This record gives sequence, C-alpha cells and structure tokens, in this order.
Amino acid sequence: MSTETAKSKHSQGVTAPKGFRAAGIHCGIKKPGLLDLALVVSDRPGPIAGVFTNNQVVAAPVVLDRQHLRNGVGRAILINSGNANACTGPAGLAAARRTAAALAKRLNGPLHEAFIGSTGVIGRRLPVERILRSLPELVRQLSPRGGLSAAKAIMTTDLRPKSAALRADINGAVVTIGGMAKGSGMIHPNMATMLGYLTTDAAIASRTLQTALIEAVNASFNCISVDGDTSTNDTVLCLANGLADNRVIREGTAGYRRFTDLLTEACRTLALAICRDGEGVTKVVKIEVAGARTVEEARQVARTIGTSNLVKTAFFGEDANWGRVMAAVGRSGVPIVPSKIALSFDGIAMVSKGVGLGLAAERRIARVFRRKEFTVRVELGQGRHEAQLWTTDLSFDYVRINASYRS
Amino acid sequence: MSTETAKSKHSQGVTAPKGFRAAGIHCGIKKPGLLDLALVVSDRPGPIAGVFTNNQVVAAPVVLDRQHLRNGVGRAILINSGNANACTGPAGLAAARRTAAALAKRLNGPLHEAFIGSTGVIGRRLPVERILRSLPELVRQLSPRGGLSAAKAIMTTDLRPKSAALRADINGAVVTIGGMAKGSGMIHPNMATMLGYLTTDAAIASRTLQTALIEAVNASFNCISVDGDTSTNDTVLCLANGLADNRVIREGTAGYRRFTDLLTEACRTLALAICRDGEGVTKVVKIEVAGARTVEEARQVARTIGTSNLVKTAFFGEDANWGRVMAAVGRSGVPIVPSKIALSFDGIAMVSKGVGLGLAAERRIARVFRRKEFTVRVELGQGRHEAQLWTTDLSFDYVRINASYRS
Repeated sequence: MSTETAKSKHSQGVTAPKGFRAAGIHCGIKKPGLLDLALVVSDRPGPIAGVFTNNQVVAAPVVLDRQHLRNGVGRAILINSGNANACTGPAGLAAARRTAAALAKRLNGPLHEAFIGSTGVIGRRLPVERILRSLPELVRQLSPRGGLSAAKAIMTTDLRPKSAALRADINGAVVTIGGMAKGSGMIHPNMATMLGYLTTDAAIASRTLQTALIEAVNASFNCISVDGDTSTNDTVLCLANGLADNRVIREGTAGYRRFTDLLTEACRTLALAICRDGEGVTKVVKIEVAGARTVEEARQVARTIGTSNLVKTAFFGEDANWGRVMAAVGRSGVPIVPSKIALSFDGIAMVSKGVGLGLAAERRIARVFRRKEFTVRVELGQGRHEAQLWTTDLSFDYVRINASYRS
Repeated sequence: MSTETAKSKHSQGVTAPKGFRAAGIHCGIKKPGLLDLALVVSDRPGPIAGVFTNNQVVAAPVVLDRQHLRNGVGRAILINSGNANACTGPAGLAAARRTAAALAKRLNGPLHEAFIGSTGVIGRRLPVERILRSLPELVRQLSPRGGLSAAKAIMTTDLRPKSAALRADINGAVVTIGGMAKGSGMIHPNMATMLGYLTTDAAIASRTLQTALIEAVNASFNCISVDGDTSTNDTVLCLANGLADNRVIREGTAGYRRFTDLLTEACRTLALAICRDGEGVTKVVKIEVAGARTVEEARQVARTIGTSNLVKTAFFGEDANWGRVMAAVGRSGVPIVPSKIALSFDGIAMVSKGVGLGLAAERRIARVFRRKEFTVRVELGQGRHEAQLWTTDLSFDYVRINASYRS
C-alpha cells in the first residue's frame, strides 16, 4: 500500500479510481455561490454496498437507497446539501423518487442503479425542481478530476472538504479506493448527518463488498460515533466497477484482507478528517478502554467518557480534571471495580487502583492536556477486551455554530 | 399548605422547622472569604432518610453516610465545599471518619448520628485539619437563623444559594419542612454534584420518612437528572426531629399523603432552583413525553431529548430547530412509530403524524423559543404512559465555567 500515491491522489477522492467521474455545482438550495449538489458516476454499473443510520426516524433518501440496494448494483450517486429531506412524509419520499428517476433517465439506466443522499435542515420540503433543473448542467460537468468539487458540494457546517485516495496491489492488479465524506462541527453522527461515499475500481462481488464495508465502517466511522446513535440521514455507500481488472476478490482470501484493510484505512482517514475538521474543535482525543470483560462493555465505557460534556469542556479548557473521567467510568452502566481502575494520559499514570496519584502527576498530565491530540487510557482490570473511540473537545465555537445552524 | 408562610420563611431554609440550627463559615478549602463549611444540627436526634448517587465510583462521605443511615437516626450534618473527597482511597475514607467523629464528639452524641457531605474537585486529599480546626467556631455560630449561610457554604459553581421552606397542617399540628441544595451550572447530577438537605419538625418513623423521601426525590431531583446517571457525591438527606408534636405520620394515611406532597414540593422547589440558577443557563425547558407504552420508555425519550447537545444549543440560539427533537426521539432506543409522532411547543403543533407542519407553524414556535421557560411535548401515540424532565439550554457560559472550573 503506497501512501505516497495516496497523498498525491488525495484531492481526487472519489474520482481517483479508474472509470469514475464526479462534479459539484450550485443548484439553489444553499445561498448563491455555495455548491449544494454533487454527482458521482461510474463509467459502468457495478456492485454497491451500503451502511445506513440506526435512527428510527429515517430520511426519504435512506428509505430509497435501502430499496435500491437490494439489487446490489449501482452506477451513480446524487447528493444535495442544505436540505435533509427528513420528516417530510410521503411528499418527501415522492420527491426522492423523482430525483432518482430523473438521474436514472439521464444515464439511460434502470432506476435501482441511481442512489441519492441529502443532508441539511430537517423538515423542510426538498426543492425538487431546482435539483431537476440543474441535473443536465451537473452531468455536463462530470469529470475524472471532479472529486474535489463533489466533496465540496456535500458540505454543511464542514470547514474543509474531506476526501481520500489509497492504492494497493491486490489479486494481480493495482486497486484504488477513493472517498469523500461530510461531517460537521460535532463528532457524533447523532449530532449531525455524516455521509461517506467510497469508490473503487476493484473487481469484487456485491455481497463480498458489503461484508468488507461493514467491517471497515465498524473500525472507522463507528469509532467516532455513538453506536446506534445516529442521525436521520447517515449513509455510507461504496461503489465498485471492476475496471482495475484484478482477479475477483473473494471472502476469506489474502486479497480480501488486503482490500478490506485498504477500505478501512480510507474510511478511517475520512472519519478522522471529520473529527479534526469540525468548527469549534481544538482537540481530537483518543479514548482507549482496556481490561474489559467484553468489547461491548469497553465500548460503553469509552462512549460514556467520550460523550461527557464535562470531560469535553475540560479538554477545551486544558484543565487536567481527570476526576470527571473517573466519574464517567463510574456511571457508564458497566459493572466495574473502582479499586482496579488505572487511568493514564499519553502514557502518564494519573490513577492507580482507583486512587489519584497526587498533584505531581496532575502537573505532568496538565502538559498532555495542552496537546492538540492525545490519548486517554482507562484500564478496568477485569478482562482482556478493549475498545477505542475518537472524540473532540466542547468549545465556544461548538455552541456558536449549533445555536445558529440554520440562520 | 400556605405559600405565604413558605415565602416569608424561605430564606431560613433548613432552620425554618422547630429545633434546627445551622451555620456556614470559611475554613480554608476555598479562596479566602468564600464560605466552604456548613453545619446543620437538630436540638435532638431524630429519624433520618437518605438517597444517594448510583455512580459506582462513590465518594468517601457517601460511603460513611450510607453506613450511618443503617441506624436511621441522625442529629447533625457537616458539609464542605471545594473538595469532593472522591477517588481518594482509604485515606479519603479515614479523613471522612475523622470529621464525622470530631462532629459527634462536639455534640456529645454517638458517631452514627453525625452525617457529612463533600462537593468540589475530585481526587484531591481532603484538608481534614482545616475542617477540624474550624469546627469549634462553626458550632459556636450555630443559629436558628443560620439556614442561609449554611446554604451559601455548600455552593460550588452555584450563583445563588438555594433554600426552601413550606408549612402545612398535618395530623393536628403545623408541620414545617425546610431545605437547602447546591447544583451547578449544569442541570444533570451526572455533570456536577447535587446535594440536597431537608429538615422537618414532623413526628414520623424513619422507615416512613425513607419511603416519603424516595417518592419525593423521584418526582423532583430525578426529574432534572438522568436516572442512574449521577456524580460520585450526589446525596439527599432528610432529618426529622418530631418537635411539631403532630400525631406520628404513618404510611397509607391522609397525613402521610399531605406530608409527602409537602416534601415533594420542597424538593421540586430546590430542584427547579438548581435548573434556573445554573451559570450559563438562559432557559429552562420542560420536556413532556406522552403516549408511551411504559413510564420507563417515556423517561428514556425525554432523557434523550433533554440531554441532546444539538437540542440544547438550539434552545440557547432560539433556533426553532424541531428536527433535532425528532432526531433525538428516533435515536432514543425506544421502539417508536414515526408516523404516529406529534410534537408541540407550548401547545403549538409543529409535527403531526411524523410530518412537519410547515414554515407557518415554524414561525409560530419560533416565538415560543424566545421565551425563558417553555414546554416541549412529544406524543408517541403508542400507549397511555408519560414522563417529564426539566432541562436547560447549552450556552457559551456553560462551556466557559466548565472549561476552567478548577482554576
């Protein structure tokens, strides 16, 4: 896997793999000048995999994509930003179908090969006409170098477009995976829609691709999110077109392993970009929980720490208030033994056997709190399972952008 | 129940009932001039009831109070602010015992009649000597008008002392309940220690008092808190001395009902004072969830809405972003039927059958969002159970005080 190549092709994102074109334009949902409509198209249809929100209130595009995904074949993905088309009822679903149908017609393909996505304000009627009116121009602008403008067009409160591109030799050919994503000032999908779109020229069956995508998402996007705690629109799609001409990737083979690792790295690059990019984010902190009886218990403890407003404001204030971390561990709902807990910050011990190690240790970890990125590690001393989660601080800007998101 | 009396005696708080004295002084834990040590004493020992944190990481004073509570008799409560005496191990527990022992000795009573409380920074060694040194002066200052200074001495980030006093004719006598509490800028006990101390001159058995207190706390403090989601120190104690000379209150009687209602009103007065007082709090919002299959499911939905940072920042920004409420309902973990959900703000319908009612409705609820206090009501349409929760907005000041709590 050559990271050099990855870097050099980074900006291309979804158009890095062979046979993909993309574009992003302004169709009139956002303020004039802001890109708000993105399109990604493969030269030929291919296997597509998807992972969606666990939220029971589901946006229209998610309902439609889930239906189309049953066929396992895709060719194009059309995404608008500025309007989530959620809580819009039957009218919203009809609007979603109209856009997908118009896209399929444009590409002279079956409806089920057209996928769509929306992100933005909930409960507003989707301005379908503006999208349909802009579709011809959008298709005209499709280009093998259009990855970046597509990544820009799916942004909401994001400060920077997020894209990735990685390559590796797999099954006798150079396989490329490209991707783009949008998050927001906040890290947790439950706090803002997270969209991720991956493209690859790998030859792989749709079922195998689905298995690989689930594994990759669990080790990336779900490590910066609260499991089962997602927005109405969260979506990750991966479209493959086989143009790399590698021997078809099959589950349980070395090729599958290499492909899934590459896909995981691409997803993790995008997931961490979402963390770092957030407006208001001044720190990205990795929460490591070890010594748990089960992975789920380790995740639960990590989640409780990583979502504590007191912990997150302490990060922002660079206040080495480790007691807030201990309190979070104690209220996580996971049975713990306080006298077994150890706590360290970038390897500097602060708590041993549940007891604080004093002001000298506190002064040492205070220096860690001043770093832009650091790791909080909790040892539960109850088992051999662990989990990790990336979180951010809670800052003034977090409040500012979310207090006035729609204005 | 005469509210006039309640108001007029309000400032006295814990010293409003017959036979209670209190005081608050500076013993040297906080910065000079700030009260940090409070004492409440009954002229004679009496039944005491208590409710404590569910956190598995428990502060030393909670461990000690739980032991002493087994005897069901109390006479004095000594509380320090500025230091939580949590995560301090065996040394912390020894320190707690020393302060309780010194208090018992001063009052010439048995150890188990002495209760203590601590609130402040976690993991710092309790400066016992300063507390012991100040005890004689504290006892000297005990006064039937000392309720307010005691209420001041238990404050941490609180802006105002919180006390209450209510009276009612119960079982042939005028019974008074007094109380004081401390919260913080945040509403949820999981985010900061919440202490509540109630006093009454009612004649009541300790077991009956315990039953009444649990009922009162569930309908008050636990309605502004995340159940099972508390700090290392949370404590609510209620001490009774029988000096009102009412016929002893027995469970299942009209007298018990009147007493429990009075106690509930006192607790709710203190709980809402904690909400309103919070530094950084500009709004107090009541979350009502109805039409649930069970009370627990109603609570779960209310909690998810009331703890959502996106919902709370929208309150602060007076942004009628009702979609965030819908998203919270959908990710609460409670099985719901989106098409059955109704959402209203101070009675103004915004969502019906899961669908937004449009911009006109949004303009109407936008006016509600500008109010200092309002109610968000969610109808799940699945059953007859409901729950309510009071929450606050998430403001710049919330971040400010918590980013620099210890400095």
